[in-house]
Amino acid sequence: MSSTFNRRKFLQTSAVAGAAMLWSPKLHASQLPDALSAEIGKSKWDLDSPALLLDLDKLEFNLKAVSAPLAGTRVGVRPHVKTHKCPAIAKMQIDAGAVGVCAAKLSESEVMLENGISNVLMTGVNVTKPKIIKAMEIRKKYPGFIQAVDNPQNAQDLQDAAKAAGIIADVVVDIDVIKRSGVPAGEPALALAQLVDKLPNLRFRGILAYDGGVQHVKGFKARKTRAFKTFEPVVESYELIKSSGLNLEIFSGGGTGTYDMMHEIPGFTDGQVGSYVFMDCQYLEIGGAKNEDRFDDFEASLTVLTTIINANYPNRLVTDSGAKSFTLNKPTGWVVGEPDFLYNAGSDEYGTISFENANKTYRVGDKLEVIVPHCDPVVNLYDFMYGIRNEKVESILPILARGKSQ
Amino acid sequence: MSSTFNRRKFLQTSAVAGAAMLWSPKLHASQLPDALSAEIGKSKWDLDSPALLLDLDKLEFNLKAVSAPLAGTRVGVRPHVKTHKCPAIAKMQIDAGAVGVCAAKLSESEVMLENGISNVLMTGVNVTKPKIIKAMEIRKKYPGFIQAVDNPQNAQDLQDAAKAAGIIADVVVDIDVIKRSGVPAGEPALALAQLVDKLPNLRFRGILAYDGGVQHVKGFKARKTRAFKTFEPVVESYELIKSSGLNLEIFSGGGTGTYDMMHEIPGFTDGQVGSYVFMDCQYLEIGGAKNEDRFDDFEASLTVLTTIINANYPNRLVTDSGAKSFTLNKPTGWVVGEPDFLYNAGSDEYGTISFENANKTYRVGDKLEVIVPHCDPVVNLYDFMYGIRNEKVESILPILARGKSQ
Repeated sequence: MSSTFNRRKFLQTSAVAGAAMLWSPKLHASQLPDALSAEIGKSKWDLDSPALLLDLDKLEFNLKAVSAPLAGTRVGVRPHVKTHKCPAIAKMQIDAGAVGVCAAKLSESEVMLENGISNVLMTGVNVTKPKIIKAMEIRKKYPGFIQAVDNPQNAQDLQDAAKAAGIIADVVVDIDVIKRSGVPAGEPALALAQLVDKLPNLRFRGILAYDGGVQHVKGFKARKTRAFKTFEPVVESYELIKSSGLNLEIFSGGGTGTYDMMHEIPGFTDGQVGSYVFMDCQYLEIGGAKNEDRFDDFEASLTVLTTIINANYPNRLVTDSGAKSFTLNKPTGWVVGEPDFLYNAGSDEYGTISFENANKTYRVGDKLEVIVPHCDPVVNLYDFMYGIRNEKVESILPILARGKSQ
Repeated sequence: MSSTFNRRKFLQTSAVAGAAMLWSPKLHASQLPDALSAEIGKSKWDLDSPALLLDLDKLEFNLKAVSAPLAGTRVGVRPHVKTHKCPAIAKMQIDAGAVGVCAAKLSESEVMLENGISNVLMTGVNVTKPKIIKAMEIRKKYPGFIQAVDNPQNAQDLQDAAKAAGIIADVVVDIDVIKRSGVPAGEPALALAQLVDKLPNLRFRGILAYDGGVQHVKGFKARKTRAFKTFEPVVESYELIKSSGLNLEIFSGGGTGTYDMMHEIPGFTDGQVGSYVFMDCQYLEIGGAKNEDRFDDFEASLTVLTTIINANYPNRLVTDSGAKSFTLNKPTGWVVGEPDFLYNAGSDEYGTISFENANKTYRVGDKLEVIVPHCDPVVNLYDFMYGIRNEKVESILPILARGKSQ
């Protein structure tokens, strides 16, 4: 695991490899409109809004920080790209030591593989015939693509398509935790693992299980108690599969809310951390091991730049950034430097801020930075992020898998 | 006003004009990935999901129906493109008799103007200097671009930029209704109209006022009562401006919820209807003049196609379409043909359906169509819509202003 993240090295590597990554005036100009090249070097306060800003110092801090509690353990991180949808950031995660990445959907996986991310585990299942055929075409082209399966019929369908494609496809069994995806834990999980292992064109690589419900439980202790409790059937399934003689190379799960807990789970190999790169109001609220009030293990690197367009009424400001820029997730965005501001993004096109106390007087045309409610769906609304360092635009990061929900 | 909508004529016109509109294998193939051309003619049930489907028969019904209550009045429609962000649909609206279109933001306006929509009224204001300069550049290129203003400083800024660009820019005064945008009604509105009229490089065209709060009031009578009540100060401002001797060519406002009411307002010229082209669960719930339970003046033409990916538990189905495909708006989507299904899109990547009664037995891989909660932000998540007729893909409609919130 390379422990040092080196940006210059990354830029050089990208340029040499020709991957469509971090964009700069010299690099990959075809990815984005020409006009964007003029933005490099600008002050972030001079950018048009709404705009998605990514503080690069904070991002780089987060890329390192996520591995700190795992030092000396056999557990790694397999960051989930559903959060950022950006191959440039996936590359930084790999360079920072990740064992690979996860992706939620097939189209998202494809964007990553096509853009130089060679090790992608797709956590969702493909269930229709055309999609399974496409998945096998992708696997044929990119050997580092691993697929999930959660029912016997699906395993057979994957087998048929892999055979037709002339390949042996790598498969993990998804085990159900919150009745959303996955095969039921215990005997059904074992039977499915054994089926995958027996099918000649599938290669059983291990298991994954995701407890989406526990990630935002407030309080480190409460979260840990619940994480271990709900994971008990998964651990039993792991033991069952292992006892049956199958080799579990992968036991993947967890998220940002449990990034510093899951290494205590027997057999666990890697955490599917996503939001840690950006943070958001939802995660900041849950509290961490060191600070029960605020989960400050990671820095809030992602903000939306917004402009005040109306200041006609006291204790009220209207901005140009509503639900189409923030989503409707709660808690609503936090205005940087103005803890008393309540940001309402309930209207599609407009944001409304109400407040009792402000640190300065705001006028029409003034700009604000707002930490986002929930990072994943916000990123999915934008074509690119501005990479910001020392308040200036250093790079443009295209969100190449934006809208790739298929 | 041409009263007949003719699709063949539209296609021919588009092809001749070379506008980047409705996409078909022969037309504008460069707009979208090549792979999409293979989708034309497919059954909608064979499409990959999540996908945005637009029933063309229903769309065409809506395009006509919106003008029915206005027959014989001097009032027209000026549809809001923030709903569909699609120049192809804007063109259909114009061909169906619209006096022009509205757009919420500058980047959205630009996409429309660049794609053959010549008459665009931008309802939001531009307040920063770079944006105002850009707006004037756009106005210089496209004489049918009308801008809103809502404070005296902004009027002066527009004047300066128009002068620098060497043009006389068309301006409407936005009058405040819900403390969101606009100049306060009454004397401030009059003073601003007079200022705009006096500034040499601005041309006063009239007023606009939007009551975003009234559109979803349930019950036709209650809605009408509130619409007229909240509009009183706007009507007074209209009378005041008119009495001062200014010519009000435009008095624009209203929405889909008040499309059949606003023509009774003195001086009113056009309704800024948006959602009527698609409809959504929010609007279907408000009731109409003919049906108090369901607002069925328009057809629900827009749906998301989704695939069932897990059916392990009774009375529960999991799909591949969550908040990234539907947004978090309430009421959540309605599954076509299954009135008892409750669709939960609260998870980013997954939808969960709970039900007591189903009309058939569903299996993994089956597809469902779901009417969207709130059409505007859902459309903003997709790159294109499939135009469907007789259950088959007839066209691809690129959502060229998707993500254009600047």
